[in-house]
Amino acid sequence: MLSKNKIKYIQSLKDKKHRLEHGTFVAEGKKIVSDLMESCKCQFVAGLPEILEEIEPITAEEIIAATTDELKKASFLKTAPSVIGVFYQPENTFSEKQLKDDLHLVLDGIQDPGNLGTIVRLADWFGIEHIFCSPDTADIYNPKTVQATMGAIARVKVHYTDLTDFLKKNTGVPVYGTFLEGENIYTAELPANGFIVMGNEGNGIRAEISELVTRKLFIPNYPAGKTTSESLNVSVATAVICSEFRRRI
Amino acid sequence: MLSKNKIKYIQSLKDKKHRLEHGTFVAEGKKIVSDLMESCKCQFVAGLPEILEEIEPITAEEIIAATTDELKKASFLKTAPSVIGVFYQPENTFSEKQLKDDLHLVLDGIQDPGNLGTIVRLADWFGIEHIFCSPDTADIYNPKTVQATMGAIARVKVHYTDLTDFLKKNTGVPVYGTFLEGENIYTAELPANGFIVMGNEGNGIRAEISELVTRKLFIPNYPAGKTTSESLNVSVATAVICSEFRRRI
Repeated sequence: MLSKNKIKYIQSLKDKKHRLEHGTFVAEGKKIVSDLMESCKCQFVAGLPEILEEIEPITAEEIIAATTDELKKASFLKTAPSVIGVFYQPENTFSEKQLKDDLHLVLDGIQDPGNLGTIVRLADWFGIEHIFCSPDTADIYNPKTVQATMGAIARVKVHYTDLTDFLKKNTGVPVYGTFLEGENIYTAELPANGFIVMGNEGNGIRAEISELVTRKLFIPNYPAGKTTSESLNVSVATAVICSEFRRRI
Repeated sequence: MLSKNKIKYIQSLKDKKHRLEHGTFVAEGKKIVSDLMESCKCQFVAGLPEILEEIEPITAEEIIAATTDELKKASFLKTAPSVIGVFYQPENTFSEKQLKDDLHLVLDGIQDPGNLGTIVRLADWFGIEHIFCSPDTADIYNPKTVQATMGAIARVKVHYTDLTDFLKKNTGVPVYGTFLEGENIYTAELPANGFIVMGNEGNGIRAEISELVTRKLFIPNYPAGKTTSESLNVSVATAVICSEFRRRI
């Protein structure tokens, strides 16, 4: 049975304050819970008995057989999930060599939890392991973000840091950003390493971060010169850019 | 003043039933309202007086100076917009020549209003004018969808139709879809016309529509063979595909 106290605890983890206090976060549904079992320590998992049997291995500190009604009360989703896991937030690390040799995303003030989750999911698809976020970017452990990653949160490591300091410490590595006056990304030569900076949904990349961009790129609209949307959704633009980098290898 | 009756009417347009009954829909914010003024008949527009002055031309049947408090009561957004417009749903048409010569999107059961809006926005960016949707796809006039288009709804024409009948009527035009066993999209030869079919978020393309796909494509993940997300978000995948089609021209 999923106790009232545990339901209250799960619900409290909707707030970043409580997630920080406990160092935990919530994931819902068999796919994400299963993916996370392999990468994060699990505080407890509560699910329908037949679903719990299907998750292998279950390495939680506590395994709780729950009813649909209990899961519905604990859930942040409209439809009750078959399983809910509470996981400890991992300590994500990276090596200097990875920083220099691999391709990374840098998110400068992405506000929408869904956009962040979608970006983590596509980063996983395109083989990007590390994402560096400004402190004002949405929280990776926001339940909406966790769900939007569709399990990619188990493989992609998200770091929060002062981006100006971070990029200044890593000079020598190319820093990419999209700007209207940038080079056509379809014909640009793109190496297999560097930082791809994506800016806030409404305001784009901050001025002080823009100054640190060493390669300005541009996704052309079609046909050239037509009146069109002024921009692409940030997760969509990130996908087109990552696809262009990976297409060349 | 935005009357209580008008606020009630705007709020009622959250439901498809009422949108169909009145043949209208709601758009919020200066950008979208301005874009729509050029393409749709406006029943009425309500906004802060200084914002109304900035929208040119205003061709609404009624122009209402409103207060932030009134706009907040009428709005579907968390933050009160500076202007709200109620527009008549346009009758979208297309020609046989356009069907044969241009590139179109075909949406088979896209459920999420935000995904649909994001797809309309990127279609506009990539010069796709017509989108054909199965009847069970989210409604283009859902307030969440309208907002997610960021004004592209004024330029992209969305049609709802039985997709099986529609595609069978248009044989001879290539029909593209993404499948795990498809051809690598990065190296495929892609013409400038045809229907790109995108499937439901969870279930993909329906079997009976899959049978009508004449060119199977695949977006490779990176690196090949790595355990990764099983799929991309549907708007993200649509963007990568449209970008690949437009890159070649």
